[in-house]
Amino acid sequence: MAKTAQKHRDPDHRRAAAAAPPKPVPAVPSNAAAHDDTDITALDLPPAPLTPEMEAYFAKCEEKLGFVPNVLKTYGFDMAKLAAFVAMYNDLMLAPSNLGKLEREMIAVAVSSHNRCYYCLVAHGAAVRQLSGDPVLGELMVMNYRAAPLSPRHRAMLDFAVKLTAEPWTVEDADRARLRAAGFSDRDIWDISAVAAFFNMTNRVASATDMRPNTAYHAQAR
Amino acid sequence: MAKTAQKHRDPDHRRAAAAAPPKPVPAVPSNAAAHDDTDITALDLPPAPLTPEMEAYFAKCEEKLGFVPNVLKTYGFDMAKLAAFVAMYNDLMLAPSNLGKLEREMIAVAVSSHNRCYYCLVAHGAAVRQLSGDPVLGELMVMNYRAAPLSPRHRAMLDFAVKLTAEPWTVEDADRARLRAAGFSDRDIWDISAVAAFFNMTNRVASATDMRPNTAYHAQAR
Amino acid sequence: MAKTAQKHRDPDHRRAAAAAPPKPVPAVPSNAAAHDDTDITALDLPPAPLTPEMEAYFAKCEEKLGFVPNVLKTYGFDMAKLAAFVAMYNDLMLAPSNLGKLEREMIAVAVSSHNRCYYCLVAHGAAVRQLSGDPVLGELMVMNYRAAPLSPRHRAMLDFAVKLTAEPWTVEDADRARLRAAGFSDRDIWDISAVAAFFNMTNRVASATDMRPNTAYHAQAR
Amino acid sequence: MAKTAQKHRDPDHRRAAAAAPPKPVPAVPSNAAAHDDTDITALDLPPAPLTPEMEAYFAKCEEKLGFVPNVLKTYGFDMAKLAAFVAMYNDLMLAPSNLGKLEREMIAVAVSSHNRCYYCLVAHGAAVRQLSGDPVLGELMVMNYRAAPLSPRHRAMLDFAVKLTAEPWTVEDADRARLRAAGFSDRDIWDISAVAAFFNMTNRVASATDMRPNTAYHAQAR
Amino acid sequence: MAKTAQKHRDPDHRRAAAAAPPKPVPAVPSNAAAHDDTDITALDLPPAPLTPEMEAYFAKCEEKLGFVPNVLKTYGFDMAKLAAFVAMYNDLMLAPSNLGKLEREMIAVAVSSHNRCYYCLVAHGAAVRQLSGDPVLGELMVMNYRAAPLSPRHRAMLDFAVKLTAEPWTVEDADRARLRAAGFSDRDIWDISAVAAFFNMTNRVASATDMRPNTAYHAQAR
Amino acid sequence: MAKTAQKHRDPDHRRAAAAAPPKPVPAVPSNAAAHDDTDITALDLPPAPLTPEMEAYFAKCEEKLGFVPNVLKTYGFDMAKLAAFVAMYNDLMLAPSNLGKLEREMIAVAVSSHNRCYYCLVAHGAAVRQLSGDPVLGELMVMNYRAAPLSPRHRAMLDFAVKLTAEPWTVEDADRARLRAAGFSDRDIWDISAVAAFFNMTNRVASATDMRPNTAYHAQAR
Repeated sequence: MAKTAQKHRDPDHRRAAAAAPPKPVPAVPSNAAAHDDTDITALDLPPAPLTPEMEAYFAKCEEKLGFVPNVLKTYGFDMAKLAAFVAMYNDLMLAPSNLGKLEREMIAVAVSSHNRCYYCLVAHGAAVRQLSGDPVLGELMVMNYRAAPLSPRHRAMLDFAVKLTAEPWTVEDADRARLRAAGFSDRDIWDISAVAAFFNMTNRVASATDMRPNTAYHAQAR
Repeated sequence: MAKTAQKHRDPDHRRAAAAAPPKPVPAVPSNAAAHDDTDITALDLPPAPLTPEMEAYFAKCEEKLGFVPNVLKTYGFDMAKLAAFVAMYNDLMLAPSNLGKLEREMIAVAVSSHNRCYYCLVAHGAAVRQLSGDPVLGELMVMNYRAAPLSPRHRAMLDFAVKLTAEPWTVEDADRARLRAAGFSDRDIWDISAVAAFFNMTNRVASATDMRPNTAYHAQAR
Repeated sequence: MAKTAQKHRDPDHRRAAAAAPPKPVPAVPSNAAAHDDTDITALDLPPAPLTPEMEAYFAKCEEKLGFVPNVLKTYGFDMAKLAAFVAMYNDLMLAPSNLGKLEREMIAVAVSSHNRCYYCLVAHGAAVRQLSGDPVLGELMVMNYRAAPLSPRHRAMLDFAVKLTAEPWTVEDADRARLRAAGFSDRDIWDISAVAAFFNMTNRVASATDMRPNTAYHAQAR
Repeated sequence: MAKTAQKHRDPDHRRAAAAAPPKPVPAVPSNAAAHDDTDITALDLPPAPLTPEMEAYFAKCEEKLGFVPNVLKTYGFDMAKLAAFVAMYNDLMLAPSNLGKLEREMIAVAVSSHNRCYYCLVAHGAAVRQLSGDPVLGELMVMNYRAAPLSPRHRAMLDFAVKLTAEPWTVEDADRARLRAAGFSDRDIWDISAVAAFFNMTNRVASATDMRPNTAYHAQAR
Repeated sequence: MAKTAQKHRDPDHRRAAAAAPPKPVPAVPSNAAAHDDTDITALDLPPAPLTPEMEAYFAKCEEKLGFVPNVLKTYGFDMAKLAAFVAMYNDLMLAPSNLGKLEREMIAVAVSSHNRCYYCLVAHGAAVRQLSGDPVLGELMVMNYRAAPLSPRHRAMLDFAVKLTAEPWTVEDADRARLRAAGFSDRDIWDISAVAAFFNMTNRVASATDMRPNTAYHAQAR
Repeated sequence: MAKTAQKHRDPDHRRAAAAAPPKPVPAVPSNAAAHDDTDITALDLPPAPLTPEMEAYFAKCEEKLGFVPNVLKTYGFDMAKLAAFVAMYNDLMLAPSNLGKLEREMIAVAVSSHNRCYYCLVAHGAAVRQLSGDPVLGELMVMNYRAAPLSPRHRAMLDFAVKLTAEPWTVEDADRARLRAAGFSDRDIWDISAVAAFFNMTNRVASATDMRPNTAYHAQAR
């Protein structure tokens, strides 16, 4: 994170601006994402040197996506933390599972919508649009999955994920039974739960640090 | 609303589909908005003949937007209700005010985000993108206005609108004082309140009827 | 709104009084509604000249009710806003509908009770007392509609209206199905929804402005 | 509780009525309190013989109020429970305290409003009207104490009582400090807390048993 | 409460400590309960002389438990209040009932867990451990009763008690019917309700006064 | 998970038991944790062969703790998932940080208390008792951290962690500023956030699977 970017986030600076007399016709923010690619969190954590493994991984991201997701750069201040995050993320979202990749992304977005996490909604909303080839499905996951015309399987899956997000202490046998009735195996229940739980973690890391999504996501697969 | 569309919404029909054995690799919904332009609510309310005034208004919509917003078609089963809705909407969102049109749309979306209203988030999210020329600002209003880099004026405006949405019974002198401190006049406070209150109405009409947004909104001003 | 009244609302004035040493036996407020007929909101919005149409309407109110409801005086700073409000209100609450006028007022009060809106509970609680000839029914709607001995029809109607008020994002086909099972048509569902939604608007306008009910309501139909 | 009354409450009976085809123009409940003086709870707990002490107390109620409050009749199935309730109630609400009787009743109603307890709102709302000589103050406590023009002392008192009701786990030194700053002694803090806590008990006994208030309360001190 | 103890609670004192520069390796609190047996509430309410009856009762506590529960010492500033509390407590928790003493303590803890009441969780958690001879059952009631392997009877009992705690305004015939279906009589429903309601009172007295549990409870029946 | 254990969890089995006539004096559960060491989740996920690395890790657990924590056995159905979990857990809870190990465990328990997660409260409550040498501190973290006599540093740390747990969407600059004012560096803020976020994940994995804590934890460090 460059110094200038850090200054931009300085709350005192903002407050000083606030003290100026408000104008009758207020300026519209011209580019709300102006700093999102350079000033990626509210914490000043200088990047550590990348390990060869992570250097290769970042290069692969650049090649495949055209950029390194900001969440990886954020974890990049500490190679052990970055490696642990990447390992868990890739296992959950990409490893073999009866849940398709799109289904896992749908869970990611429905959970992030409950938690109103800007970073994850942008990044994984784009993934839903891309994997489904259906931009509107991405919007529905972001806005209210209950408004989407879902199969009973997908509705049960997201109902479980969102209940687990909102009131985990009330999840019980009856909830697992509903998943089984919708055709999910015990392993599938694990995968739904683990993905929902993981985004409950990352949503909070993102909110705690004001993590900004790469601007490239916004226009993807519209 | 055509008969076929109505059938599509039949919950028994959906449930019958659910009883089929779930497939290991489940079909992805290929077009979540497939019926949104033809099957615009869950209620079967046949359109009334348009009054000349409303016919002219619908024509103006077609000309300016390229389509008649589904909310107007929804109210179109009763000309008195349609006229009352149009009069109030146009006064609130378009009549002279110290609040700019973009500001009013920002309130609309922040309120609709709290209420997770699919119709209003789609339609007014598009309006924020269009009026601001900043697609990301639209996303921020939809996802979490607190994550946006707002001026103190706009932050105070949206904080008031969302508090009024979430817990109207706790709004008091101190809340109005915060708006005044941010430079808003008493008339401005009225306008902020009236717009926020109006979308608390329309969000509920939309949710109560499962109102679907015109598909044209999704790609606008991305 | 007279100047004196405005002064009465001055929060600094109140705070000054607070700084005085508290008395061992504190004075009881002798008339909590002392200013409610003169100092009707917390906003200083001087009345506009009434249009002939509105002048006639206010005269009709005086004749029928003995007073002009404060909500109308509040909107009276702008004739376009007043006319739009009156048109929508009268259509919703008085136009032909399968819902009786009492039923619409019951919805108004149950919604306003959820939102703890002082103005609407006073004004529409009086309407329920008057239209039903049953003062206790008015109290029940204000306090907790679930404690009232309601017909299944009325219970379903109010359950829908209050759920739509509290968590509109969760209203779905199953909720509409419950209304249909209780004998309501699609048009009836619209009317229930529209009335509930409207009071979610007016509750917020009233709370945002600290709107005070005309004192005459309190003793009506007790 | 007479047998007929019990039958009246039979939920199966109600459900049978519900199965009948709903009528187009539904009957309005003509007297929502028709059974409130005879059918005072949903539990069938036959009265025990009154002890001489309680017989005298009931007689005193009849003399002073014109009736025995239904809460006392409810507890009347067990003399030990009745005596314990009466002792605690009378100490809290009537024994010497720096809090006036009206102040204690204001706490009772504000707490009962948060808990939406029909019995307590009716009975203690009447007490506020009577003790203050101000019917509107009673309405304000029932509907939303935040809308009442209260002294800083009374506002601090009710804010504490309602916070203690809504989220007792968050009450801390800072909350007690606010009461002290408003002029309350440690003993006063006890009294505020004890009264608020007591109504959190009685609200729940009343809701758990569907306790009905004596009809005489409704018209008192209007 | 000794003067020193009172000083210990002084928030200014704490704040002064806070102003000191934070140390890189912060001290761990060595004994979080250091003052719990001497400094039992945040209020300075000097003990009143015990009545002979209460003196005997305190002596019996010392004999049976080895100490006088701090809640009794707290009420000891006023003999009428202490006597009323003791009478109600003993009737509810010890008098004959179809509910066993352990069942009543399970309700006490499940309710106190919802309200996160430190005093009651410590004191009544110990009682559950002792009466059941099962330390883990005590932990389950404290942490989340839904995670305990309960009989349908006990689950229904605690579900009712916790719903009555969390949202008393929604308790209705259907909730009582569930208790009856689980084998509870109307008198049992009263007892469940009365115990749950009582702890909703004491939880709030304890939270309002920062009541500390006797340290002896912690190690009991582990 | 043995077959017998799985049978024990069978909900149909439980329901059959429920259908038996309820006994007047119901049996007390004699050992609520009877199956916790053998029947560790509600999912039937047979263990995979341990990798040499994980075999060594499990052996180290046995040696140090006397048992393998059930969470590790739970993840043991898939070596990639187990390895990713262990790597992240050990980095967060054991790697160098300005936050002491006890502080990280305090965050773990305060977060798990908000989420009422039985597994994590038992396992990490024991860790707080052990690391602090103060059994009561463990209880306080489980029951209500706000009732603990914490340093301003620790209070700020837990307030942030619990707010991030309860309402992550409201965490902003002002919250981070409070941590900085309490002496925390940006790296410390990361560590607090990452630990709090991680337990928001594990709490949900545990609740989703009904994960049972090893019985050995209960008696540790009492």
